[in-house]
Amino acid sequence: MEVKSAIEQKSLLSVLPPGKRARLRRLLFEFGPGHGTLLFLPIDQGIEHGPRDFFPNPASKDPEYQFSLAAEAGYSAIACQIGLAEKYYPDYAGQVPLILKVNGKTDVPPSDNALSTTNASVEDAVRLGADAVGYTLYVGSPRQDEDLQQLKGVREDCDRYGMPLVIWAYPRGSGIDKKGGQYSFYAIDYAARMAMEMGADIVKLNMPKIDPEKDKDSPAPYNEMDVSQEEAVRQVVESAGRSLVVLSGGSRVDDDQLLQQTRYIMEAGGSGVIYGRNVWQRGHSEAMEIIEQIKEVLLDSVTRIP
Amino acid sequence: MEVKSAIEQKSLLSVLPPGKRARLRRLLFEFGPGHGTLLFLPIDQGIEHGPRDFFPNPASKDPEYQFSLAAEAGYSAIACQIGLAEKYYPDYAGQVPLILKVNGKTDVPPSDNALSTTNASVEDAVRLGADAVGYTLYVGSPRQDEDLQQLKGVREDCDRYGMPLVIWAYPRGSGIDKKGGQYSFYAIDYAARMAMEMGADIVKLNMPKIDPEKDKDSPAPYNEMDVSQEEAVRQVVESAGRSLVVLSGGSRVDDDQLLQQTRYIMEAGGSGVIYGRNVWQRGHSEAMEIIEQIKEVLLDSVTRIP
Amino acid sequence: MEVKSAIEQKSLLSVLPPGKRARLRRLLFEFGPGHGTLLFLPIDQGIEHGPRDFFPNPASKDPEYQFSLAAEAGYSAIACQIGLAEKYYPDYAGQVPLILKVNGKTDVPPSDNALSTTNASVEDAVRLGADAVGYTLYVGSPRQDEDLQQLKGVREDCDRYGMPLVIWAYPRGSGIDKKGGQYSFYAIDYAARMAMEMGADIVKLNMPKIDPEKDKDSPAPYNEMDVSQEEAVRQVVESAGRSLVVLSGGSRVDDDQLLQQTRYIMEAGGSGVIYGRNVWQRGHSEAMEIIEQIKEVLLDSVTRIP
Amino acid sequence: MEVKSAIEQKSLLSVLPPGKRARLRRLLFEFGPGHGTLLFLPIDQGIEHGPRDFFPNPASKDPEYQFSLAAEAGYSAIACQIGLAEKYYPDYAGQVPLILKVNGKTDVPPSDNALSTTNASVEDAVRLGADAVGYTLYVGSPRQDEDLQQLKGVREDCDRYGMPLVIWAYPRGSGIDKKGGQYSFYAIDYAARMAMEMGADIVKLNMPKIDPEKDKDSPAPYNEMDVSQEEAVRQVVESAGRSLVVLSGGSRVDDDQLLQQTRYIMEAGGSGVIYGRNVWQRGHSEAMEIIEQIKEVLLDSVTRIP
Amino acid sequence: MEVKSAIEQKSLLSVLPPGKRARLRRLLFEFGPGHGTLLFLPIDQGIEHGPRDFFPNPASKDPEYQFSLAAEAGYSAIACQIGLAEKYYPDYAGQVPLILKVNGKTDVPPSDNALSTTNASVEDAVRLGADAVGYTLYVGSPRQDEDLQQLKGVREDCDRYGMPLVIWAYPRGSGIDKKGGQYSFYAIDYAARMAMEMGADIVKLNMPKIDPEKDKDSPAPYNEMDVSQEEAVRQVVESAGRSLVVLSGGSRVDDDQLLQQTRYIMEAGGSGVIYGRNVWQRGHSEAMEIIEQIKEVLLDSVTRIP
Repeated sequence: MEVKSAIEQKSLLSVLPPGKRARLRRLLFEFGPGHGTLLFLPIDQGIEHGPRDFFPNPASKDPEYQFSLAAEAGYSAIACQIGLAEKYYPDYAGQVPLILKVNGKTDVPPSDNALSTTNASVEDAVRLGADAVGYTLYVGSPRQDEDLQQLKGVREDCDRYGMPLVIWAYPRGSGIDKKGGQYSFYAIDYAARMAMEMGADIVKLNMPKIDPEKDKDSPAPYNEMDVSQEEAVRQVVESAGRSLVVLSGGSRVDDDQLLQQTRYIMEAGGSGVIYGRNVWQRGHSEAMEIIEQIKEVLLDSVTRIP
Repeated sequence: MEVKSAIEQKSLLSVLPPGKRARLRRLLFEFGPGHGTLLFLPIDQGIEHGPRDFFPNPASKDPEYQFSLAAEAGYSAIACQIGLAEKYYPDYAGQVPLILKVNGKTDVPPSDNALSTTNASVEDAVRLGADAVGYTLYVGSPRQDEDLQQLKGVREDCDRYGMPLVIWAYPRGSGIDKKGGQYSFYAIDYAARMAMEMGADIVKLNMPKIDPEKDKDSPAPYNEMDVSQEEAVRQVVESAGRSLVVLSGGSRVDDDQLLQQTRYIMEAGGSGVIYGRNVWQRGHSEAMEIIEQIKEVLLDSVTRIP
Repeated sequence: MEVKSAIEQKSLLSVLPPGKRARLRRLLFEFGPGHGTLLFLPIDQGIEHGPRDFFPNPASKDPEYQFSLAAEAGYSAIACQIGLAEKYYPDYAGQVPLILKVNGKTDVPPSDNALSTTNASVEDAVRLGADAVGYTLYVGSPRQDEDLQQLKGVREDCDRYGMPLVIWAYPRGSGIDKKGGQYSFYAIDYAARMAMEMGADIVKLNMPKIDPEKDKDSPAPYNEMDVSQEEAVRQVVESAGRSLVVLSGGSRVDDDQLLQQTRYIMEAGGSGVIYGRNVWQRGHSEAMEIIEQIKEVLLDSVTRIP
Repeated sequence: MEVKSAIEQKSLLSVLPPGKRARLRRLLFEFGPGHGTLLFLPIDQGIEHGPRDFFPNPASKDPEYQFSLAAEAGYSAIACQIGLAEKYYPDYAGQVPLILKVNGKTDVPPSDNALSTTNASVEDAVRLGADAVGYTLYVGSPRQDEDLQQLKGVREDCDRYGMPLVIWAYPRGSGIDKKGGQYSFYAIDYAARMAMEMGADIVKLNMPKIDPEKDKDSPAPYNEMDVSQEEAVRQVVESAGRSLVVLSGGSRVDDDQLLQQTRYIMEAGGSGVIYGRNVWQRGHSEAMEIIEQIKEVLLDSVTRIP
Repeated sequence: MEVKSAIEQKSLLSVLPPGKRARLRRLLFEFGPGHGTLLFLPIDQGIEHGPRDFFPNPASKDPEYQFSLAAEAGYSAIACQIGLAEKYYPDYAGQVPLILKVNGKTDVPPSDNALSTTNASVEDAVRLGADAVGYTLYVGSPRQDEDLQQLKGVREDCDRYGMPLVIWAYPRGSGIDKKGGQYSFYAIDYAARMAMEMGADIVKLNMPKIDPEKDKDSPAPYNEMDVSQEEAVRQVVESAGRSLVVLSGGSRVDDDQLLQQTRYIMEAGGSGVIYGRNVWQRGHSEAMEIIEQIKEVLLDSVTRIP
């Protein structure tokens, strides 16, 4: 398969130290669809939203479901919190790479001052044989001071152990709400850059949603830009610079839209997708089917060699 | 005695490292009713509520009462704070296992922003020969950020020393109050999952109480579910996944109810009960009697081999 | 002299590790009135209230006054902050044992959210040859979370160095005010238990004051109990369990009351008293006189062998 | 070229320990315009303002643009955050010195209580071969207590590793707003002194703006002083004492003004400039042109030998 | 010269460990006026008030002015922050002792909740060859909890390194304002005692100002005392006990008053003065003159041998 680089983004792997390079290569080339793409299965909704996300497909309440799916379908990695990593990953060690998500929170209190504190460490990730760690950064939150300080510790440990760092770059908090909201082009563009500047090797982004009504509240020039969603995606990927970008899924959407946005992110120079509910809220065979379709799009549309 | 596994829950012990496995086996098979069941005696009400809980049975004010009861009646373990562990446990060391509860608080201030800080460490537990540590997690509290960060330290030390971790998973705080309250199915289901994802080996849960009026405030689909209490218990046990579940007692109820809820939890795949006031607010012979009845139910209804 | 144990409280010394045992024996048997009693002289009012407490007896402003009094009159120990310990204790080292008080605060700001942070460490106490450390715990304060966390560190260091821990167990804060106040039976009973459960070897308590009007605000069953002060004292001593109890003095009262309350605490199974202003707000000979009377009561009324 | 010292400022280098001296000499004499001048290129706007600053010159969104510009045009150093330093600097190591900016924040929340927490360490700077670290101090912010404590750690590490410390000395917060604002002579004069007293080797200052209306709110004697901008610049440079001063650029201004303020700062005894948007919001050749003009002014107007 | 001890204050030096003794002797006998007196030159106004204090004597803006003055006039020590210590002290090392002030803050935000965080460490002081460290304690501030905790660390390091500790004992905050204000006899008396109890070797105090109107708000007995200023000074010095006392100057007053208050403090048993603006807001020869006069008073009126 031949891939071409749309934007003149230089290689990420070439500037990474050996530990990060070895682990990232595993995700990009040895597991999953390969050819420099990333297909992640997230199973952290149980703490972020509670078990309510599992009711559409009761089988999904048992983490075995996601772990076996990830292994069987050939994912680049599965992303979960420490409890699942310690109690479910051992049976799948070596079969599918692990991204240990090191912070998280319930969605019970309001998120005006969002901060997600760490519940696990990079050392835990090393001990468990993980190939990356995940960190949620609430970009623009009134508590960004604590967030950035905390991320510093995680990033430093990643540098110390050669562990790739995946940042869930989520605009959040009262300030963001006043400037167009967490899905605005402004907010996601800022989040992409922020994550890259804070040391992310991979940035996880939501799809920007163009909403002229809300965008009027964004700072210039965003408040008067007239861009298509495709263009917005291209921009946010560019803002992440040398960091790789994976697109977040969110709540369930219809299949066409899912595959289309997968294509968008790949054509924009992104490296892959991280879809949870859109995959495991389906029964096994139906899930395997959509995974196959996603993989195809990934490989068809890949434009960047990392 | 023959036991059958109702749900297809895989073995917990098989994924645990040797230290945790050795200590948990002591609780599950060597002490207490055995056969994989757990019967815990908690004596932390003196700090959580003050001495007022001791007035119904004045003898219970002297911790000797609970310690000797636990040893004589053959408990899986006694759970208490550092002061009792240091001053009363020495006389019972080796006769009954110890769960050192490492955090706690008085109930004098309101609990809108509940947080229970640590007053002892996992190292204390190791030094005192404990077989597990206990931690209260206020799931969904506005101060969950501090709670999860603190739990991280405890959990890491448990991993370091091979010490089983029991999480008192209590929904609490203003956010929970607005979404159905701390006894709602929604809240306890979330707490069960949260504790498991945060690394609990054993989760201590309250019995969910179905209250259609309050449940309307819970997020979907809880707000429109119509489940029996038995079904709710089965669900919350499932949400705890591979973690073992013990049912909390709370304030005193009548004996039939106590034994019935014991049966519920065991049939749902739980591993046992942790009843305090329901046991030691009785005189010695009366207490021994109810303990015997509880044990019988435990062994009769056990459905899971850990 | 013959002493009898009124309550069946087991020996404290027998469960303590050697360092604590050696030091406590010094206070209980080698210095002071002996025979298992405790007579402490506190001189921390200079920081807790400021120099205003010294005006009734200007000589008392010079810490030499209290130090020489404690040595001459044969106290079990003198309790003070780091500054006095470093600058005045050297001249009395070996003549009277030292309790280093490791936290404290001025009374300038209001105490709704009382917290007393540490200004010295257990290592300081070891270095200065102290035989115990003192810690003020504001039981029930809205900032109990910080207090308990801080106490954890002090208690752990006490365990590490074999240093006895004396807890000034003071109910305090807005929550206490709403439930009967800091001198209510409810509050002091809770404080006694709390201190014991947090690891106190010795608990310093105020005399509970029965006030039916205020007690109505206490939780059940305190709100409807009808107890004498003697009974209340007996109860709070029992709530402290194996921890030894010393009675606090507070502001100056008349001599009969002082001696009577001394008798109360001893007959209730307490171990002694810690009177400051009631002693050193008198001139030298008058002070020596009252000390002699207090000692007599202590030895006459002792009911517990520690 | 001959330079003369306008003010009798003694040598900075002569009092610095060898590590700082070696690194500073590199910036002052070996790279950039030399002759003791400083020409810095900052590229931290991506986190301080977000990608919106890159739209005027889309090429500037790719950090390659600034890095290659700094190397090609011969800058004294390029200043950026950890993410750029790790992913873009490797290709330019040895070609242009690096100032690692160790704190930063988004401008999403309001800045009434401004604090910029660290996201990188001095050790990171050492590891990456940087020749200085940068720190933003919000002088006068209500959170100055946290700021100064944090700076302490950074400054101590700089002393430990012989790393020069550049302080972005920015008056900020509600208190400053009430006393003339962040660009007032009062505020910037204070900031200059503060940075020097806190250990800055180089102080980055904004140009003070004389505004009689606002200055009335400044404390005496600033509220009734009648100074020219040139005089104000001379004063703030003097307030920085032995610390070197570089002038900040801010948002884009016209070229004449840019060059004039460059002359001002040099004639006042400053050591150089740090202009970002004024340089890289232009295309390559236009940027090279203005850089050349700035350099000329620097060398023409230099008055201090460091 | 013969000196007599007015109050029966015992020797401070005799109870100090060797490091503190050696360094304090340097200040008391080898440098400055000697004979057990202390003459300190403070130059920390640049951060506490900003450069505005330098306008009355523009030469004073250059720290060289104060450093050379201190060396030339023969001061016991010069007191400054880390920036001046690192950049200006090297030229004067060995010529005049250094007191490194380790905390400080701007006066931009209001001081209702005053707290001055550390910006340097005792280790910095050791490294720079200082003979003492200075610490500002805001006695009675609502943030005293943080202040005392922070002071603990500084004091412990002083004990570790044998470094004398000078406490700037300043009553401050909303609570003090309500009880007579920061210059009331009550407040300064409390501050003197507090500093001594917290471990000060030298206490820096403001002159108490008797103001019957305000003093009515002080606690008893201060609210109804009728003392002269001389008596108040004598009292506050006594409250500092074995700690040495130096009198603070504050903003500029006339010479007679300055010399008179110098006499007051010495006759009360104080050890010297620490005047800044009153000295260096004058030109060189005028400054030398007043210093000579101050020295004379110090030596004439000394009443205590430390």
